[in-house]
Amino acid sequence: MSLSPEEFLKDFHHTATIGATAHQGVDRQAGTAKDGEIRAWFRDWGAERGYPVRVDSIGNMFLLAEWTPGVPFVLIGSHLDSQPLAGRFDGAYGVVAAMHALQEIDAEVQAAGEKPPFNLAVVNWFNEEGARFAPSIMGSSVFVSLMDEADMLAVSDPSGTTVGEALESIGFLGTDSRPEVASYAEIHIEQGRILEREGIPLGAVDRSWYTQKLDIEVLGEQSHTGATSMADRRDALIAASKIVLMVHEVTKDFEEDALLSSVGQMHIEPNSPIVVPRRVHLVADLRSDSEEIVQAARATLLAGIDALTAEHPVDVNVRDFDVRPRRPFPEGGLELVEKLMADKGLSTRRLRTRAGHDAVAMSTQVPSVLLFVPSVDGVSHCEREFTEDEDLVTGLGALTEVARALVGGALQD
Amino acid sequence: MSLSPEEFLKDFHHTATIGATAHQGVDRQAGTAKDGEIRAWFRDWGAERGYPVRVDSIGNMFLLAEWTPGVPFVLIGSHLDSQPLAGRFDGAYGVVAAMHALQEIDAEVQAAGEKPPFNLAVVNWFNEEGARFAPSIMGSSVFVSLMDEADMLAVSDPSGTTVGEALESIGFLGTDSRPEVASYAEIHIEQGRILEREGIPLGAVDRSWYTQKLDIEVLGEQSHTGATSMADRRDALIAASKIVLMVHEVTKDFEEDALLSSVGQMHIEPNSPIVVPRRVHLVADLRSDSEEIVQAARATLLAGIDALTAEHPVDVNVRDFDVRPRRPFPEGGLELVEKLMADKGLSTRRLRTRAGHDAVAMSTQVPSVLLFVPSVDGVSHCEREFTEDEDLVTGLGALTEVARALVGGALQD
Repeated sequence: MSLSPEEFLKDFHHTATIGATAHQGVDRQAGTAKDGEIRAWFRDWGAERGYPVRVDSIGNMFLLAEWTPGVPFVLIGSHLDSQPLAGRFDGAYGVVAAMHALQEIDAEVQAAGEKPPFNLAVVNWFNEEGARFAPSIMGSSVFVSLMDEADMLAVSDPSGTTVGEALESIGFLGTDSRPEVASYAEIHIEQGRILEREGIPLGAVDRSWYTQKLDIEVLGEQSHTGATSMADRRDALIAASKIVLMVHEVTKDFEEDALLSSVGQMHIEPNSPIVVPRRVHLVADLRSDSEEIVQAARATLLAGIDALTAEHPVDVNVRDFDVRPRRPFPEGGLELVEKLMADKGLSTRRLRTRAGHDAVAMSTQVPSVLLFVPSVDGVSHCEREFTEDEDLVTGLGALTEVARALVGGALQD
Repeated sequence: MSLSPEEFLKDFHHTATIGATAHQGVDRQAGTAKDGEIRAWFRDWGAERGYPVRVDSIGNMFLLAEWTPGVPFVLIGSHLDSQPLAGRFDGAYGVVAAMHALQEIDAEVQAAGEKPPFNLAVVNWFNEEGARFAPSIMGSSVFVSLMDEADMLAVSDPSGTTVGEALESIGFLGTDSRPEVASYAEIHIEQGRILEREGIPLGAVDRSWYTQKLDIEVLGEQSHTGATSMADRRDALIAASKIVLMVHEVTKDFEEDALLSSVGQMHIEPNSPIVVPRRVHLVADLRSDSEEIVQAARATLLAGIDALTAEHPVDVNVRDFDVRPRRPFPEGGLELVEKLMADKGLSTRRLRTRAGHDAVAMSTQVPSVLLFVPSVDGVSHCEREFTEDEDLVTGLGALTEVARALVGGALQD
């Protein structure tokens, strides 16, 4: 059986019907009913084709082609959860491509009657997005022990529901053992414009950016918006707004896009129209290819916040969290991709990833490959995220080539 | 039976146990279980003393001393709902003082054996605070037809529960007829520092400030905080933060405290740590004794927002709402208070109210009196709101004097 682009596209576009939003996007936040629905679809897809699924104790799902019992697995996949009002491609593309790559390779193995050195499995990682439950890249980070499982199960969403409770409620808090993994490959949309601009159908990631977040708590005092003199106020939102702008302005200390920064999350208390806010909690995100730039920006922000508290009657607590060092992907994997694609006459290029990915976590433990396909306008985490079917199919072919080589023993020296 | 300060203080301090917070405050937002609890206490207090309670179809409660059936009522009271993490005094003081004033006057009427020209009732207005359900001053505004009852019953909180559903769920969506009202009196803590600073135990409000809110929606585009170039972003929170600061800065165009402004409420979408915000909804509050100042500030803000949208790739929709004109309290009521207090040897002064009150709504329909007692540091809508027992008792005496005069026919010419 040869690879069927039609079947792959049918399955991929089907995932977009689960948690579909009004404008072509999806909303399948981790541990919600919609996440449960797509997980059931993933499990049933495997069961119908004779691939058993294991679910581990942080909700990661593994769909297995275990040709030789006891032999480690090449793992391929991504994540089926999404941001709120997200695009259809981020994560889901990588999982569905992996499902079809596995099906293709399995058919080849069955036809050849000869077992390769490694087994193959597709993974759907839990909570890559970190929207409902922070931090992101949770399932794969627990898998490689970058995060503690018990701590992560206890993380709660704004309504107080924990990760453990959410997984339990959708029936995906598993007890299965984790497969032993030999290597890892993932394909994802670029979430940037380089491939599109250069007309190159495939990228291979050579390293991830240095990233960190700042958890910032601004403490003022609650008072009446109508009755309290301006001079008597300790308005936490005024100070927080200045911090949001500082986080933005600090990018201008460096070359264009050498530093990316943003405040994506902010909670205001009590958040009543006629009460001066007493507390604002916000998360700032800093990313650069250079650790020095992130550190310099962080130092500028801390100094700016110090100056702010000298001027404003508020207290500000700042805490570093989710610090992720720059991580290289192995040269061998990059060369493997380049060779395989050259053999097919496809041009490729090396790229950095500014966004985090499960492959970055996996690369700390096993030889890993992260492939990108073009993304129109480079937009991501929004409903208008888009990649052409043709590019999706080209990527599926590339992932299948890489997985076939890995199953055959590539990157094991 | 003479007025018992001990019984009054006991009842007043009891209200602070319902919805008590960690730091001496209360949290009894309108239509919540805690609001239901204090309403039941209010009703039972009346029932035990032989005063029937009516509940109308917007949840206002009236505790009646109906000496002469068919005669209009003098209404005294305030509200038992609170802001989140609020003080114990705002609202509850006025209701409990009214309960004890009624008990005192009823005892005098029973002892005298002679019926006064008017009946007397205590009111607990629904949702004065407007924290969970905006706008504020809801129950009294519906009572005097400044707001439409059906519209207000359909107002929903952030979780989608309507006012009607919330009242139903706590058992206080009534069907009783509203009492006919001849005049109104309310006592409240000042929520400012004037009485404290001048050492005056009682203030009478001569007029309310002109107030209005601006409902501001900032629309950008959702994108990935890590993957999206700074130049490609349409970050709604950056623009919203600039608007928050504009709302603050505009007060500096006028004399100190001639204009009070604030942004107390802000909702960010999708509010995820790694997503550039697509939409921010915020409410700005503008207040001044002068309508011209509010209008000038509003014009400055609209121009500033126009300039902002010329610079930033966002759209901003601004809508005026909750516009409340300056309202005078009748000169007769002010003179009545001054005469009654002078007879008791108490000094008083006239004050403006910058905050809204149920008495302001009532003053549009019947002769109304609004009394203030001192508030330590002038702080309000926070847990450290405080008024001395002695000042509470002095205020109770003043409210009783005023109510007695109103029941006797004062302000009816």
